Amino acid sequence: MDVIESITEVAKKLPKGYSKIGDDVALVPPGEGKLVLKVDMLVEHTDVPRGMTYRQAARKAVAMCVSDFAAKGARPDSFMVSLGLRKGVTRGEVDELALGFGDAEREWKVRLVGGDTNESQELVIDCAMAGFAESIVGRKGARAGDALVVTGLFGYPPAGLEILEHGAAAEPLFEKRARSSVLLPAPSLRLGRALAPYLSSAMDSSDGLARSLHILAKESGVGFELTSLPVGVGVDRFAAANGLQAEELVLEGGEEYLIVGTVPKRKTASAKAAARRADGQLIEIGRVTARPGRVELRTRGGGSPIRDVGWTHLR
Amino acid sequence: MDVIESITEVAKKLPKGYSKIGDDVALVPPGEGKLVLKVDMLVEHTDVPRGMTYRQAARKAVAMCVSDFAAKGARPDSFMVSLGLRKGVTRGEVDELALGFGDAEREWKVRLVGGDTNESQELVIDCAMAGFAESIVGRKGARAGDALVVTGLFGYPPAGLEILEHGAAAEPLFEKRARSSVLLPAPSLRLGRALAPYLSSAMDSSDGLARSLHILAKESGVGFELTSLPVGVGVDRFAAANGLQAEELVLEGGEEYLIVGTVPKRKTASAKAAARRADGQLIEIGRVTARPGRVELRTRGGGSPIRDVGWTHLR
Repeated sequence: MDVIESITEVAKKLPKGYSKIGDDVALVPPGEGKLVLKVDMLVEHTDVPRGMTYRQAARKAVAMCVSDFAAKGARPDSFMVSLGLRKGVTRGEVDELALGFGDAEREWKVRLVGGDTNESQELVIDCAMAGFAESIVGRKGARAGDALVVTGLFGYPPAGLEILEHGAAAEPLFEKRARSSVLLPAPSLRLGRALAPYLSSAMDSSDGLARSLHILAKESGVGFELTSLPVGVGVDRFAAANGLQAEELVLEGGEEYLIVGTVPKRKTASAKAAARRADGQLIEIGRVTARPGRVELRTRGGGSPIRDVGWTHLR
Repeated sequence: MDVIESITEVAKKLPKGYSKIGDDVALVPPGEGKLVLKVDMLVEHTDVPRGMTYRQAARKAVAMCVSDFAAKGARPDSFMVSLGLRKGVTRGEVDELALGFGDAEREWKVRLVGGDTNESQELVIDCAMAGFAESIVGRKGARAGDALVVTGLFGYPPAGLEILEHGAAAEPLFEKRARSSVLLPAPSLRLGRALAPYLSSAMDSSDGLARSLHILAKESGVGFELTSLPVGVGVDRFAAANGLQAEELVLEGGEEYLIVGTVPKRKTASAKAAARRADGQLIEIGRVTARPGRVELRTRGGGSPIRDVGWTHLR
């Protein structure tokens, strides 16, 4: 079967100025500003947890790129997918992938413009995304005194993974939210673009909050002092019931798809208002310090260091 | 180890206007015309024959994209690589990959602007390439009466694969050329861009000459009559010595990285001259007919159909 053809049949018709899918390369009309590029590869045994359908995996592969565009305030336009498919892949599985790419197209208003298929030993979806921006929010601009902000609460995806992979117990509503955060990650381009003018530095949190903090601290040559942890509602209770540490779920979980960034103090009120207008939120969790590389949580007794522990893939 | 960092250390410093490697996305200055995008995935068990080093595999992954840009007359600017690496990948292997990407950068004047690394069960290199063009040579423009042209002789890569994979016997000079055609494929951007103004349709021949002819015929709604086969020097003798059919090696081999195209009759002399100026060649092998989908080789007795048999991957 012609996999790319069946996948693009499901995708939206491309507007004028785009090449028809099926040529050797894709042609995209020039946009405003510089070209923004991103690749992110989804590999079945590390990125597709038990319970995730092919449709969800396809959508997630695109979400992984969208999340970076959101954190950088860039506008994605088009994406291509390179697929590695097992020898015995079924028509039904290919149709599922197609539906997932279609979901991503509609949800983030991006266009699938081409792709490549190959035989591999497990499902591999490499998404290459292109878009435009005049400039992007970097990783180096955090300054001592800036507010440290995040765009949501953490801990749902690692809890969801515990539920999906290890059958951890959870209350029904929490379980629903936690599972959905894993199966249908929802980076917000609208929020990212609304916040970009206010952010002095930012990145997404797909490798975990702790990892993002340490990277931003290192790249900007600053430290962070957290005054509170952005603990998701119910994460404490879920952790206690399953013998886990809530703090670890929040800091070291990964797959979060929220933005971690810094905002100059005088801009925080406007940034929060901009987030609300974009149907999002901006939560202040601490401040930038002049102590390079030091990332700590302020406690009654002083500061306790936050470990630089990144998200390690499934299994 | 930080794989992308070690790989980009070997790569060239990026000129002004490009983002530094290591941010979440890459920024590329806008170029002339529309954006051209291409992804191509190299998978170890189907694309890396015995005897190919990691350095050559990395260079080949980029060559696969370059070949399509060449056939379409587009100018590549930047590329990103998504790597799938085995769990036990060594420092030495990563360094080899880095060298191969560096080779590609210098050879085709393209810039590695970012990437992603993952754990996978075999080596996977997905190359996503971006560049610019006012327009591209399509697949639909062939018209009855046009000359059918190729940019070189066929049969070396399939012979090289027989040598590398199955120890086929060959004369030393032929063996060298055949092996090199597999291990160091050399698509020519210079030739592709020089020819683009003359071509009414074109594509690369990485899936084999027969496959390319059938695709162009189908897409353009025409037929092809070949008056001669572009048989590589020594391919006949190699085939005879190894119990193979030279015609099959030439038509059904694949991995060729030459351009197959059509040129309006009145432009063939200028196109040939343009090819020579670009240190290449343009070989007329037949003509376009008005018999849709019919691809045949003219023989003394009439025409013998050329089968639509594509390159099937290794193993």
